[in-house]
Amino acid sequence: MTFVKRTELQMFDGRQIFYYDREPVERTAVDIRPFEPRPLPGDMRQDLLTGEWIAMAAHRQGRAFLPPKEFCPLCPTKSDFGTEIADSTFEVVVFENRSPSFSAPSDQLPPETIQASGRCEVVVFSDHHEGSFGSLEIAQMRTVLAAWIDRTREISKLPYVEQVFVFENRGEEVGVTLNHPHGQIYSYPFITPRTTKMFSVAQAHFDETGVPLITSVIEREFKDQVRIVAENEHWISYVPFAARYPYEIHTAPKKFVPDLAALSDEVADAFPSIAKEVLLRLDGVFGIPMAYIAAWHQAPVRTGRDVLGLHWQITSIRRAPGKLKYLAGSESAMGAFIMDVKPEQSAQQLRDVQL
Amino acid sequence: MTFVKRTELQMFDGRQIFYYDREPVERTAVDIRPFEPRPLPGDMRQDLLTGEWIAMAAHRQGRAFLPPKEFCPLCPTKSDFGTEIADSTFEVVVFENRSPSFSAPSDQLPPETIQASGRCEVVVFSDHHEGSFGSLEIAQMRTVLAAWIDRTREISKLPYVEQVFVFENRGEEVGVTLNHPHGQIYSYPFITPRTTKMFSVAQAHFDETGVPLITSVIEREFKDQVRIVAENEHWISYVPFAARYPYEIHTAPKKFVPDLAALSDEVADAFPSIAKEVLLRLDGVFGIPMAYIAAWHQAPVRTGRDVLGLHWQITSIRRAPGKLKYLAGSESAMGAFIMDVKPEQSAQQLRDVQL
Repeated sequence: MTFVKRTELQMFDGRQIFYYDREPVERTAVDIRPFEPRPLPGDMRQDLLTGEWIAMAAHRQGRAFLPPKEFCPLCPTKSDFGTEIADSTFEVVVFENRSPSFSAPSDQLPPETIQASGRCEVVVFSDHHEGSFGSLEIAQMRTVLAAWIDRTREISKLPYVEQVFVFENRGEEVGVTLNHPHGQIYSYPFITPRTTKMFSVAQAHFDETGVPLITSVIEREFKDQVRIVAENEHWISYVPFAARYPYEIHTAPKKFVPDLAALSDEVADAFPSIAKEVLLRLDGVFGIPMAYIAAWHQAPVRTGRDVLGLHWQITSIRRAPGKLKYLAGSESAMGAFIMDVKPEQSAQQLRDVQL
Repeated sequence: MTFVKRTELQMFDGRQIFYYDREPVERTAVDIRPFEPRPLPGDMRQDLLTGEWIAMAAHRQGRAFLPPKEFCPLCPTKSDFGTEIADSTFEVVVFENRSPSFSAPSDQLPPETIQASGRCEVVVFSDHHEGSFGSLEIAQMRTVLAAWIDRTREISKLPYVEQVFVFENRGEEVGVTLNHPHGQIYSYPFITPRTTKMFSVAQAHFDETGVPLITSVIEREFKDQVRIVAENEHWISYVPFAARYPYEIHTAPKKFVPDLAALSDEVADAFPSIAKEVLLRLDGVFGIPMAYIAAWHQAPVRTGRDVLGLHWQITSIRRAPGKLKYLAGSESAMGAFIMDVKPEQSAQQLRDVQL
């Protein structure tokens, strides 16, 4: 990275923590909490009816659940209460999740266990307790992006990781258990069901046309125009033609890249402004902070890298003030989605928001 | 059907309504609400990135949302307020959904529209406003099952239906908008994503072993014993080996059948008691009514009927009193499930409930 400094330190229980700073700050704060052994890795089981892998992470049941602000584990350490971040200020921090769903392989498990190998990290967007990704300063958003890029590149080197998934859950309505602005990185030892499906469709498209699917999708959005929400020199944001959620926005680089690590500095520099615009428009639709899941779709680490293109997918389950879209029978049990709002209509609503 | 009488009548707007009665009651009540045209069918769009179909049902936004009891549209009509059911008492009633996600093809739509053809029905379990499927009398549960069987058989004859999905959502936590005990039937013009996946896994298993996959799964549950929750002569209930939800129970007939319509009277007669036991155990875990989705997996109408076996899947998102499992980033965006509770542990909890 050219302009962000990374400092690697160790946490009280041996986990790694990375500070990302725009200025060359010295980071030396020591995590003085008393040692505690880390949980053993969980295992995975294959669903006999679908062939899909399910991570069994029973040790996660006891994780922190909506603690009051003074006990927020993602705030900087300012008092006797030692948080996950030992320093008293920071810009952006990434550390290994204390209750990981996937973790480094261990030889302490019974040999017949299929280990949930991988890596789970927490990305803390700011040392302020309030806010979310979209409320950060542009420069701060760029540092978060730098951290996402760096972590994607580094985690991709782990031999037991097949796919790196960077995401943010915002709002208690989607199950957020810590309100401090943060995201997560899940790194899986398999290619996820959704990506497997997208891979097969994208490969078929590439074989037929010689063009990555996301490139053809973007071409179509430019042609149709009606679902475009925002645009700049390097990125485009649109409501997808067959959106599944009342408010769903995809933001993609205009030029195909497989993952965050492949973004040029120039293209990366252009992301924060469009991301901020999109998130402000989303909050503007009903004039309330929207609960959402913001997911970076990336090509897997070792395959599909010519055909699966990076894009950032925001889905919100709010369909009206006071009303959420639930994944009930059809969506949850059958995977068949019903949409209450036409994509062209939600795109219009998003464009109409006064910024 | 041998012991249940079906009476077909028409609703005020031309929709069909079916009364199912154990006794040969005369049903003649007329729906006198003023005529109102029915909504045009919605359309479907194919998700370019996954190939899956999404139903666009914008007319559903205005549907009834948690009305107070005196305006419950699923209660019998007892006063000036005309409900969906014109009679003043009933046992079990099925009618066409007023805001259907899928409906009969129409020639009133533009020819380039891909119609969301199919059929959506509401199954009202009782004329009492309180309760749910598990709180019905055994005989009443049997009548509901008779209605499910009859509707599956009849809807399967529609040339534009590929799959019939019978389900119940219980609890506002899973998005229920009407509290009156009821379920729904969605009939799709395609095979759903979940069933497509299960079909391919089940076909591969059948090709290899000559045995339907569900039969092998049940054999394994009998061998392992530890995940079995309940059993009777014709049915077995178990927590699946790779459950996705904190409390998930599959109930299957011991002898393979493709769908509800293929159940013998003897096997059908044995279902209500095990269903009641399972639902009582589920409510007993935390001593509160559990929100759940109860989904009947059936073989599609025209394919997979030798390899895909009927089973009833209950999934509950409650992981502790006051805590729900949310489908956040990993589940929602990647389809990769993380489980907080070991299946053997939840099976033990369910068995330990004192009935």
